Amino acid sequence: MRIVDLIEKKRDGHALTTEEINFIIEGYVAKDIPDYQISALLMAIYFNGMTTAESTALTMAMLHSGETIDLSAIKGIKVDKHSTGGVGDKTTLVLGPLVAAAGAKVAKLSGRGLGHTGGTLDKLESIPGLSIAIDPKDFSKQVNDIGIAVAGQTANVCPADKLLYALRDVTATVPSIPLIASSIMSKKLASGSDVIVLDVKIGDGAFMKTLEDAKELSKVMVGIGTEVGKEVVAFITDMNQPLGFTVGNKLEVVEALETLQGKGPEDLTTLCVEIGSYMVYSAKITDSIDAARELVQQQITNKHAHDKQLEFLQAQGGKLPDLEQFIHVKDIVSVHADTGGYIASIKALDIGLAAMKLGAGRATKEDTIDPDVGIKLHKKVGDYVDQGDVLASIYTNTSSIDDIIAEVQQAYTISKDHVDKTPIIYEIITKEDI
Amino acid sequence: MRIVDLIEKKRDGHALTTEEINFIIEGYVAKDIPDYQISALLMAIYFNGMTTAESTALTMAMLHSGETIDLSAIKGIKVDKHSTGGVGDKTTLVLGPLVAAAGAKVAKLSGRGLGHTGGTLDKLESIPGLSIAIDPKDFSKQVNDIGIAVAGQTANVCPADKLLYALRDVTATVPSIPLIASSIMSKKLASGSDVIVLDVKIGDGAFMKTLEDAKELSKVMVGIGTEVGKEVVAFITDMNQPLGFTVGNKLEVVEALETLQGKGPEDLTTLCVEIGSYMVYSAKITDSIDAARELVQQQITNKHAHDKQLEFLQAQGGKLPDLEQFIHVKDIVSVHADTGGYIASIKALDIGLAAMKLGAGRATKEDTIDPDVGIKLHKKVGDYVDQGDVLASIYTNTSSIDDIIAEVQQAYTISKDHVDKTPIIYEIITKEDI
Repeated sequence: MRIVDLIEKKRDGHALTTEEINFIIEGYVAKDIPDYQISALLMAIYFNGMTTAESTALTMAMLHSGETIDLSAIKGIKVDKHSTGGVGDKTTLVLGPLVAAAGAKVAKLSGRGLGHTGGTLDKLESIPGLSIAIDPKDFSKQVNDIGIAVAGQTANVCPADKLLYALRDVTATVPSIPLIASSIMSKKLASGSDVIVLDVKIGDGAFMKTLEDAKELSKVMVGIGTEVGKEVVAFITDMNQPLGFTVGNKLEVVEALETLQGKGPEDLTTLCVEIGSYMVYSAKITDSIDAARELVQQQITNKHAHDKQLEFLQAQGGKLPDLEQFIHVKDIVSVHADTGGYIASIKALDIGLAAMKLGAGRATKEDTIDPDVGIKLHKKVGDYVDQGDVLASIYTNTSSIDDIIAEVQQAYTISKDHVDKTPIIYEIITKEDI
Repeated sequence: MRIVDLIEKKRDGHALTTEEINFIIEGYVAKDIPDYQISALLMAIYFNGMTTAESTALTMAMLHSGETIDLSAIKGIKVDKHSTGGVGDKTTLVLGPLVAAAGAKVAKLSGRGLGHTGGTLDKLESIPGLSIAIDPKDFSKQVNDIGIAVAGQTANVCPADKLLYALRDVTATVPSIPLIASSIMSKKLASGSDVIVLDVKIGDGAFMKTLEDAKELSKVMVGIGTEVGKEVVAFITDMNQPLGFTVGNKLEVVEALETLQGKGPEDLTTLCVEIGSYMVYSAKITDSIDAARELVQQQITNKHAHDKQLEFLQAQGGKLPDLEQFIHVKDIVSVHADTGGYIASIKALDIGLAAMKLGAGRATKEDTIDPDVGIKLHKKVGDYVDQGDVLASIYTNTSSIDDIIAEVQQAYTISKDHVDKTPIIYEIITKEDI
């Protein structure tokens, strides 16, 4: 087999076989195949796509390139959730305790990434004392005991995906749906859960810009999961404005806790209850989605979810102070509406970039995160404001933030005409849809 | 400027500016841009093409990456010809003396390549004593004195093209019309002639398989030439069967000499007279193509072209022996028709590969060429044969060539129905056509 022939085959629109894809990934990891041939192949894939069989083969080849997580010591059906990433996305902080309270097993190993705010690990580490370094035995024991554990990923999971992603990043081949799907699914399958619920975000602040693209990505990922016998569901959800009101590590921890107490934002609450219901139903805790939804909602009203969150944080050494005393910043600066009317849009990406400038996120691996800074929105799409009303508060440790204030203000578009609130969930893609 | 943004721009179907193309080529030659980004860009170009302005910018960037040949010491309009390559293509051996006899200046610097037979240099070197190593001063003097010189290319011409071609070869990005056009034109422009006639071959034995592709390639090349103020014409010619009767170095030298004496094959003669007419007309030796054609034909009938060939070979040290004594092989093996009928096709590529197996050409740079071996066809498309007639003679220095005999026989398709002879010239593309 010669790699140049396989590039030509893909270039000419033909599907590669599983054997050919294994040859490519094994050869690339072993450095037998150079970057310049793989990047040409990736660009050919960008243009000609891949079948579900090819995407599945690529997923499995990347999965088999490294270690996989063995969760067999944990009793019961393990559920996991993955978001394609958005601004203000604290869903995992809410969903973990919520579904654990309802009886599902949440065994989550996360990596750190770049982003407008830190990832789940960074948000958890903003809680004094909390550790995400747990050894595998203790990790399984914690899940068996209290239903949930979240730890840092230390295993060498999917090295082929890391190599490919780094190459895609510098060769303009990131936005290819089969490559995105295989990258996500290889890591999710390696992490060992039985049920995977995907949160595919669309809009200004997300990687997928259109419903059509998001549906295609969702179908490919559900297709891959189904091919390998996993229970996979994809939610297509809105990221045309930040999720909830907060963007920033500690701010998001607080909002997550409030949501578990039934005092959270409508969009975040709805999203977590709906995704949580599918996780609970897929874990076979209830016989129907409706029963699962009722059970999940009960966990909020009866405070079990909030108690589970505190139990989980304590189990990992976290000492949550009084929430009023939790966030320490030099200044909280208000951003005012320069005109009256209905909020027509809030550019999520611009809010995310403003939060990153404050220090809430990482642009490079070397950046350190300031857990206290961030942005709290007071108004969201569909809300009415008078001129001079506070649109948002900027939590900052930097003194000169005039540019950031202007960016947050300009992220808002205010309309004289009535604007409807946007839905949070657009579609749910299950194996019946593919 | 970041290369990843330029890859994305081309990936998304936009045209690159001259400044951007210069940045890419200069960066690549300087090793500031790695192979893996260039190969992704090449694949994006494969899919999205290039405008004539882009192809011209790429041509000029590659041209400026190295040395160019200064032919200013030669008086008059210098004419050059380039063929995209085919089986049995000895056109240069005929055309050079033919147009030099008619008064044009032929100053040809050739490289060596891989192929079914050697290139022009190898064919000339099959003549005892002939040298293609001439220093630049002597080269110009020879052209001024006798109108023609052919020497080996020693200058570092278009290093960017060499790098790009090597990368294209291993990344399945060779068959891209703008990349082929830029590669050919950069080298032709670097070689310093004023008039360039291109022979774009189509068919089984050529790189271009269809008239449509050949027309597109021709138009791009004529467009590039016109953009930079050169006189460029492209002939689209047949390569569905070998050109002339011979495939092999010495065999082709003999056929070229016979053609200059008016005893050559019809297809080769027609092709050389027509291309020669355009070269002579473009060199402003005559006022019309028709007058040029008449002048060129005269050079054959009055033997001036043949005399010019002998003068040229002698000027470079060649001692042409009696043609009957020129070729020495261990055996000449006949290939017979296994059935009677009309020759419907002769797969040029298979004949070429058979010749290469005999030792007439190079598969790798390290291969040495046997100048005496080759294949002489006795029958061409449209000819009638009886069962048992000799289709071809194999000139060989190897004893067991049963497989080659079978390959030559199988290259012929014989039909019971009448088959017309195929035309040699399909179209002529001038700057009026673009």
